[in-house]
Amino acid sequence: MKRGFGSDNHSGICPEVLEAIARVNEGHALAYGDDEYCAATEKKFQQAFGAQAKVFFAFNGTGCNTLCIDAMLRSHEAVVCAETAHINVDECGAPQRIVGCRLLTVPTPDGKLTPELVKTQLHGFGFEHHSQPKMISITQPTELGTLYSLDETKALVALAKEHGMLVHIDGARLGNAAVALGCAFKEMTTDIGVDAVSFGGTKNGLMMGEAVVLLNPTLHEGFKYRRKQAMQLCSKMRFIAAQFDAYFENDLWKRNAEHSNRMAQLLYKAVKDIPGVKVVYPVQANGVFVQLPSKVWTELQKHYFFYDWDEAADIVRWMCTFDTTEADINVFATLLKKLMMA
Amino acid sequence: MKRGFGSDNHSGICPEVLEAIARVNEGHALAYGDDEYCAATEKKFQQAFGAQAKVFFAFNGTGCNTLCIDAMLRSHEAVVCAETAHINVDECGAPQRIVGCRLLTVPTPDGKLTPELVKTQLHGFGFEHHSQPKMISITQPTELGTLYSLDETKALVALAKEHGMLVHIDGARLGNAAVALGCAFKEMTTDIGVDAVSFGGTKNGLMMGEAVVLLNPTLHEGFKYRRKQAMQLCSKMRFIAAQFDAYFENDLWKRNAEHSNRMAQLLYKAVKDIPGVKVVYPVQANGVFVQLPSKVWTELQKHYFFYDWDEAADIVRWMCTFDTTEADINVFATLLKKLMMA
Amino acid sequence: MKRGFGSDNHSGICPEVLEAIARVNEGHALAYGDDEYCAATEKKFQQAFGAQAKVFFAFNGTGCNTLCIDAMLRSHEAVVCAETAHINVDECGAPQRIVGCRLLTVPTPDGKLTPELVKTQLHGFGFEHHSQPKMISITQPTELGTLYSLDETKALVALAKEHGMLVHIDGARLGNAAVALGCAFKEMTTDIGVDAVSFGGTKNGLMMGEAVVLLNPTLHEGFKYRRKQAMQLCSKMRFIAAQFDAYFENDLWKRNAEHSNRMAQLLYKAVKDIPGVKVVYPVQANGVFVQLPSKVWTELQKHYFFYDWDEAADIVRWMCTFDTTEADINVFATLLKKLMMA
Amino acid sequence: MKRGFGSDNHSGICPEVLEAIARVNEGHALAYGDDEYCAATEKKFQQAFGAQAKVFFAFNGTGCNTLCIDAMLRSHEAVVCAETAHINVDECGAPQRIVGCRLLTVPTPDGKLTPELVKTQLHGFGFEHHSQPKMISITQPTELGTLYSLDETKALVALAKEHGMLVHIDGARLGNAAVALGCAFKEMTTDIGVDAVSFGGTKNGLMMGEAVVLLNPTLHEGFKYRRKQAMQLCSKMRFIAAQFDAYFENDLWKRNAEHSNRMAQLLYKAVKDIPGVKVVYPVQANGVFVQLPSKVWTELQKHYFFYDWDEAADIVRWMCTFDTTEADINVFATLLKKLMMA
Repeated sequence: MKRGFGSDNHSGICPEVLEAIARVNEGHALAYGDDEYCAATEKKFQQAFGAQAKVFFAFNGTGCNTLCIDAMLRSHEAVVCAETAHINVDECGAPQRIVGCRLLTVPTPDGKLTPELVKTQLHGFGFEHHSQPKMISITQPTELGTLYSLDETKALVALAKEHGMLVHIDGARLGNAAVALGCAFKEMTTDIGVDAVSFGGTKNGLMMGEAVVLLNPTLHEGFKYRRKQAMQLCSKMRFIAAQFDAYFENDLWKRNAEHSNRMAQLLYKAVKDIPGVKVVYPVQANGVFVQLPSKVWTELQKHYFFYDWDEAADIVRWMCTFDTTEADINVFATLLKKLMMA
Repeated sequence: MKRGFGSDNHSGICPEVLEAIARVNEGHALAYGDDEYCAATEKKFQQAFGAQAKVFFAFNGTGCNTLCIDAMLRSHEAVVCAETAHINVDECGAPQRIVGCRLLTVPTPDGKLTPELVKTQLHGFGFEHHSQPKMISITQPTELGTLYSLDETKALVALAKEHGMLVHIDGARLGNAAVALGCAFKEMTTDIGVDAVSFGGTKNGLMMGEAVVLLNPTLHEGFKYRRKQAMQLCSKMRFIAAQFDAYFENDLWKRNAEHSNRMAQLLYKAVKDIPGVKVVYPVQANGVFVQLPSKVWTELQKHYFFYDWDEAADIVRWMCTFDTTEADINVFATLLKKLMMA
Repeated sequence: MKRGFGSDNHSGICPEVLEAIARVNEGHALAYGDDEYCAATEKKFQQAFGAQAKVFFAFNGTGCNTLCIDAMLRSHEAVVCAETAHINVDECGAPQRIVGCRLLTVPTPDGKLTPELVKTQLHGFGFEHHSQPKMISITQPTELGTLYSLDETKALVALAKEHGMLVHIDGARLGNAAVALGCAFKEMTTDIGVDAVSFGGTKNGLMMGEAVVLLNPTLHEGFKYRRKQAMQLCSKMRFIAAQFDAYFENDLWKRNAEHSNRMAQLLYKAVKDIPGVKVVYPVQANGVFVQLPSKVWTELQKHYFFYDWDEAADIVRWMCTFDTTEADINVFATLLKKLMMA
Repeated sequence: MKRGFGSDNHSGICPEVLEAIARVNEGHALAYGDDEYCAATEKKFQQAFGAQAKVFFAFNGTGCNTLCIDAMLRSHEAVVCAETAHINVDECGAPQRIVGCRLLTVPTPDGKLTPELVKTQLHGFGFEHHSQPKMISITQPTELGTLYSLDETKALVALAKEHGMLVHIDGARLGNAAVALGCAFKEMTTDIGVDAVSFGGTKNGLMMGEAVVLLNPTLHEGFKYRRKQAMQLCSKMRFIAAQFDAYFENDLWKRNAEHSNRMAQLLYKAVKDIPGVKVVYPVQANGVFVQLPSKVWTELQKHYFFYDWDEAADIVRWMCTFDTTEADINVFATLLKKLMMA
């Protein structure tokens, strides 16, 4: 299939990552993470997130998010999150089934929680009929391609601490957020009091495998058993570790994320002034959300696969990825212009 | 780490499999299994298991087994299985947590269920205080390296049908069983009325990824949602499909399994006559279970990693794999003899 | 504690119900519902709901609601309900924990779903990342004391059938709705295509015990096991049956419900014209929701227990019950007036 | 139905208990346990179990047992119990579904765990594939009518503490055990280090309602929410409290239990010497387990309802209760003799 803008998981494996998989494919290694490759990669995570970071590899983002919720609360407690959060709309109810908890969802204008929005859910403490708010989960960057500034995240952490709550970041695209904010992973998580991160790599060049990064040591207890019971323990784990090793090596993650963010800016510029096309959210990471006539986007879908994000409102999503080229964008934008003028 | 006999998941990726991963790493592909590579591999599964086979890739064996149970029963129903079954002792309670059901376990002399053993659990039908027996799960070959003959499996299927129950095979090493029985996958599953199979590849040369093969069409309903909700849906699924594609190509699975089975026979022959060493189960696949003095096996563990299988009884497990060599066995057996004589 | 307006479960046992408990307290009876008293009461349910009605007694409303959801869907499916639904806000997440499903909640002006509101949730069918909408749950009368007309319910049933969905009524106060609508239970449920009802009695004079009434025979399968597994199976069940027997005898339920509805009208009339007091929802059953200054309602709470319904908006809830008297209302209203004028 | 020996929950409500229900049926009371009656009864529990006892009323034994397990462990941990334990064989898998954990069951000769039997399950600590043993659950008296001495219980508690495990007593018939042991509840629970008790009353004269008694304060956290979420929170809770109030008043529980134990001794004496009838377990509480020819017990079942306990072995169970009379026993034994001689 030709390259398009359907999703950043439509791209394949970054060459450096594939090489790393081949490199560790020699001899035997202990299974389930007890090997030297995993140990080495864990050190790289600690360099990236700080010495107290403890990493647990998992298979996918749904697994990471659900395991983080599972570590942070029990079933009678609840997560406050944006209505558009992946954990709410795109896990087919995994948190409900695996953890058994409620999600307290808040409508947002741009996918971002604010202290004011979160406060609408902070009631019923101590009332046994009410699921007790216990954590705030934000997506960084959000599912709508927008970004929390460090100060915005800090404000949410402060509110959480005030209520004895914990803070989770769904970082399926955390690399894109880091380059957009121009800061290190540690600065945007550990240093400002975030308790756990779902750290994604698959959408930024990995083949398969994500990581839960626990920053708050109170979350460690029992975690390894719960990962296993939740069916997220990989046997030949060196092959996940190797991917992340390559990801950190020479800042591969950064190059890839900078590229996809830059491509999104190019795409944005290429389409924003086309009459009838409206970019509906700030383009702050690698996604561009656009409102355009339904007959145009459905026609465009005959040439390219992409998701209608809000069919009723004629909003569609276009994602850039580590292997998107300027030529890809030009061809796409040219076709779009042609269809808009038809 | 040097090659040993710790587990067949201590070995790495078979070269043909790694090449297949690289081969499909071009351009974009739809995520979540909607790509051409998955479609092509599904056809190979149908060649292997028959036209009605429907394959759902998953991440690991725990996932496959739990998804099969989930497809076959609801939480008030129960699985009959051997006490030694992986689903009972090695999933940290995944079926209980994810499906919420009981396992009705039966002690066995050799890891194998028989109709007589299963019948001890077939009571309480219609009694609402009792979890209703709904499926039989066998492991082929068993966790103890033993094998069900076709007739033995047929007898269990017949008993199951008699009681409106379904039959599942945990086939984490199904290739080893197929070559030992000298039959095709279809003959040992579909043709004799098995309803679903957890089909493993990781222990026989794959990197990561297993497959649920549904043979009974009544099990399809809702399965795709339940896989997603159970966190077993891979995004870049072409990279699992590619591995299985290589696995079936030119009977790679068969060559690998024949090799590891043959190595187990060599290992068996190399140790069976050492005084003080007792092979405790028939060596019918790629594992050898041995009873020997604790001071010997603990000393041996300083040189090789392997599991004590029953510490109290001084029984340990040695597994052969696709990359085990005759030289590996000679060196190991020589050391063992030396230790036994010390 | 003196009688107040805190909740209709603050009242005790209606004399006829207590007598019925005493009446069946003779000799032995089979446990778990296999006795003659349960059989007799089941017949009364069938008179009330139609011949196909199958009743399963349970302990409480949370149990009934959760069992109905459990019977209607599997964990990857979802319930559409009002944001204010008891199953959403007042079960501490029981449906999520016990069934593992999502609730798709809709903000409403008055606690009532409409086809238009439900339609906002009817998307993503067939998309495995999305919990599949499978049932509509309405509360009749609603948690806000409002009522669905028969036509309004019918319209929701029609929409549900159109999408292969089922309809559940949380009828914790179904008696109050029936007398308000002036119709029989059957007319407002079975006759218009409702699939299952949580039928409450505790809030209308029973001591303890509620009933799931299944109207759609496809829901029967496995139900008795699932009630047991969900810990809602009563051993000395004759004592729940006897209560419902008395409830139906001579239309006790009707007299009680008519009374509490009438008391709510009196209360409404007594307070609606007090300056500064605003009744915020139509008074259609036995609850009155009122907005008034916080210093008044908090002062009033020193004399009477009642819930602030929306603290931020200064809305409180006053419930009438089968033993509320006109004098109770006069004393209460007099105090309220005094406080408002202070 | 005439009085028989089917179960101690076939009997009705003890007169004192019914009177107590009527006595508290006046005026309004706060729901969900926040009333004065519940407070008063909680004090009586503290007199019986010691000052640190915290009582939570629930609906039934399945609820109490499951809530205790839920308070003591998380889903990746496991309960060690006898194979015959009610939590294993008679809850239709409630612990598995509600808590998601494994039960590690041990065959026993007489329904009683011993340290030696428990130790067979105490392995795999720290191994993430294995459900971690976290609690021991015993039934006192057991499901087979046998009794743990204080020393036997102490030995199990000592073993548990040694491994960081907790101890639960399923005390559905704890009164029968207390009178058999001749000791107070506190001596057989709190004083010897038991952590939590499922305290039954229904089988000893109550109408409906059981109690979780937490003796270890570390178990309190979150318990009230988890009871609610598990659908075991009663609204008009004063009517459960009142029953237990009467139960403790003037040692009603003791009189009832002494009576049913004594009746079991009479029954035992009346049948033990009948040729062909074999009493298979020591009669230490209110149950008598008997082996006799199948044609006799099936014939006897035409006159009396009782359970075949082990159909294959021709073992049946006869239970005595608070309202069993000597005449009941004489008539029953006479019939039995007649049938045995036929």
